[in-house]
Amino acid sequence: MKPLQLRIGLLGLGTVGGGVAEFVITRAERVTRLFDCHLELARALVRDRTKPRPVEIPSSVLTTDPQDVLGDPTIDVVVEVMGGEEPALTYMGAALQAGKHLVTANKEVMAKHGRRLLELAAQHNVDVYYEASVGGGLPLIGPFKRDFVANHISSVRAIINGTTNYILTRMSQEGIDFRDALAEAQRLGYAEADPFNDISGLDAAYKLAILSSLAFHTEVTPDQIYHQGIDTLTARDFRYARELGYAIKLLAIAREHPSGIEARVHPTLVPHQQLLSEVNGVYNAVEIEGDLVGQVLLYGRGAGRFPTASAVAGDLIDLARNIRKGVNNRTQARIEAGNRVLSIQELDTRYYFRLTVSDEPGVLAEIATVFGSLAISIAAFIQQESDSERRTAEIVLLTHRAREASVQEAVRRLRVLPRVREIGSLLRIEDGRSDRDA
Amino acid sequence: MKPLQLRIGLLGLGTVGGGVAEFVITRAERVTRLFDCHLELARALVRDRTKPRPVEIPSSVLTTDPQDVLGDPTIDVVVEVMGGEEPALTYMGAALQAGKHLVTANKEVMAKHGRRLLELAAQHNVDVYYEASVGGGLPLIGPFKRDFVANHISSVRAIINGTTNYILTRMSQEGIDFRDALAEAQRLGYAEADPFNDISGLDAAYKLAILSSLAFHTEVTPDQIYHQGIDTLTARDFRYARELGYAIKLLAIAREHPSGIEARVHPTLVPHQQLLSEVNGVYNAVEIEGDLVGQVLLYGRGAGRFPTASAVAGDLIDLARNIRKGVNNRTQARIEAGNRVLSIQELDTRYYFRLTVSDEPGVLAEIATVFGSLAISIAAFIQQESDSERRTAEIVLLTHRAREASVQEAVRRLRVLPRVREIGSLLRIEDGRSDRDA
Repeated sequence: MKPLQLRIGLLGLGTVGGGVAEFVITRAERVTRLFDCHLELARALVRDRTKPRPVEIPSSVLTTDPQDVLGDPTIDVVVEVMGGEEPALTYMGAALQAGKHLVTANKEVMAKHGRRLLELAAQHNVDVYYEASVGGGLPLIGPFKRDFVANHISSVRAIINGTTNYILTRMSQEGIDFRDALAEAQRLGYAEADPFNDISGLDAAYKLAILSSLAFHTEVTPDQIYHQGIDTLTARDFRYARELGYAIKLLAIAREHPSGIEARVHPTLVPHQQLLSEVNGVYNAVEIEGDLVGQVLLYGRGAGRFPTASAVAGDLIDLARNIRKGVNNRTQARIEAGNRVLSIQELDTRYYFRLTVSDEPGVLAEIATVFGSLAISIAAFIQQESDSERRTAEIVLLTHRAREASVQEAVRRLRVLPRVREIGSLLRIEDGRSDRDA
Repeated sequence: MKPLQLRIGLLGLGTVGGGVAEFVITRAERVTRLFDCHLELARALVRDRTKPRPVEIPSSVLTTDPQDVLGDPTIDVVVEVMGGEEPALTYMGAALQAGKHLVTANKEVMAKHGRRLLELAAQHNVDVYYEASVGGGLPLIGPFKRDFVANHISSVRAIINGTTNYILTRMSQEGIDFRDALAEAQRLGYAEADPFNDISGLDAAYKLAILSSLAFHTEVTPDQIYHQGIDTLTARDFRYARELGYAIKLLAIAREHPSGIEARVHPTLVPHQQLLSEVNGVYNAVEIEGDLVGQVLLYGRGAGRFPTASAVAGDLIDLARNIRKGVNNRTQARIEAGNRVLSIQELDTRYYFRLTVSDEPGVLAEIATVFGSLAISIAAFIQQESDSERRTAEIVLLTHRAREASVQEAVRRLRVLPRVREIGSLLRIEDGRSDRDA
């Protein structure tokens, strides 16, 4: 029997695209031997055909005209690894309408337009695979669609941005400031020249939109997800947090409540007993809680040339199985109606405040009065350093569970107190049972 | 459109079977709503029809005659959760030959006869699903078949027996002895009345056979896997290990070498920097190293009523998708020829010795001479406690990398030294790079 031929049109030949091309070219023989499927790089859309590439690709494969990929009837599958919303979305839609399968690593497009693309694919009897859009080579889309599918998932908590996790790890371990940690990450290639999407939490919000849509069988869009960045954190926050028994991580959190779905991304105090507190460097981890499976944690490299190529290549091989069997849209599930996404104002959690105040008697009473009048009760309190020159002191407060709306009101009231000089950090805390308890 | 009807014949209604039955009965509506598939518990094979069950099952469903399940042409899928080799294997073969799909949690049968059953299923155009056979609800079979499939996997290292991990955790944390920890595990339902399969490492060897067959695209059978149990460990071993920077875990290890596949199960010294050293209690974890994906760790509850039911139910829903699309054996891969499984004698690793010796001058020189003559070099040495009454001392030695055959020869030579009273423990060490390095 002749192996199945799978002609690939690659959109983008950057970090991830280069990894995919290298895989297809150097591993074709092994893939054919094991899976009876011949992957062939038919065309690759690039910006500049003359740019040197880390992997040797015949120049006849390279093109600067998207129509050479999208309009070529011999191409079976389009692999979109260019990133960004446009023109990627337009190309992806065109590919599906031309009856081509789609494998993508594009979190932004899948988060914003995933449902529409999946419907378009179903109409044209082709498949959309997007394992590479979240967590690099970490299996996530697959497990949600198959392994965990019998579960009622109650929560997803994740470290899904390697750039920020690297920066936070360095700030925590070395006591360095955000700016220095960012510069180091950029030097090492862990952060982009324009790090806005990572630092602001937007990238993690895209990924959380994809994961929570799958976990809760609904549609969660990025604009429904609150996100707060990591750029206001100081080395001192890490010191205080450690003293109090916490690490600080940029967590993406989604939970199902009777009233709706909570979905948010922000720097979070994570107790040292929880495994997520120990996920360091560029590693990602996703923790899922299901009614049957209990707690599961998936840990690995969430980005990079080859981890992401691993996900794309796995999708290509699975797609080849579908094509051989003549099926598509095998794993589609229906959407649960009426799953409202809650506003951040409705959040109920614990909070960490770091305040700079005038070093005078009575300040603490004023602050306590603000909290008390809003029924926010204080769980712990540190007043550590006084700056005798500026006559200020730094205060750290941990609250018991409180409503976000009340906490925001407290911030407004604290801001107008003359002796509160600055609200340095307002962070949320993820307590809860230790996941080490057997 | 009418939902797909899936009539289930359950073989076994114990811990896992009860969980599956409860899922099918109580979640049928949700499964139909989301996946357009109606699961129905048609028959359940039990030993005793009158025994009280934690979930209410119509007595007409219960039967003591396997033919009522295997011979019923209206049953679409047999779910085998009785465990053990026979009669499970016979029933499973009969089900496939009768054209029924098979979902199983049976690690022993899949480890010993998996390849034959998969071939039989392919001949009869039906599917065999076995996600529940390893790691409970932890996604493993699925990720190996799909998510990691593009990778050349170089190693699998796993804590895949919750009973022994619970016992080792208690011995380590509480300083209690093996017998007491086992008794406690039995009291809590974490160990069976006859714990032999768990304690001896045999259960983990079955699971490693399944995982390594998938990882390396070959057939590894349990009799090719060396296994050593945990019953000779003492609380003192944990103390010494901790001092030297290690935890002790029952690891299942498989690695691919140019000369063949290494596969073994034994209590292992794991450096504290490695995440596997922190997997405690009944939790399981599997660490995979792939050429593209790098290092991935999957962590969760590896056993129990509902985690295992999660895997079985996920398999049933995925099977329903195949039936609806009219496909089977979608994920079959070919076998890589010539993948020899290495003997334990060929192992090259580091070792931990705990010896009881006469407390006399010159003993250490005698021991060192034995090691030296076999070219085994000593990396660390502790002589901590002397028993003045018995005039003995306890010595702990760590070696550099050495060949297992040489180490076994050293054991033989040490045994005949009159002043070596006892070789208390011989453990293997898993060093290597820290997986925390970003």
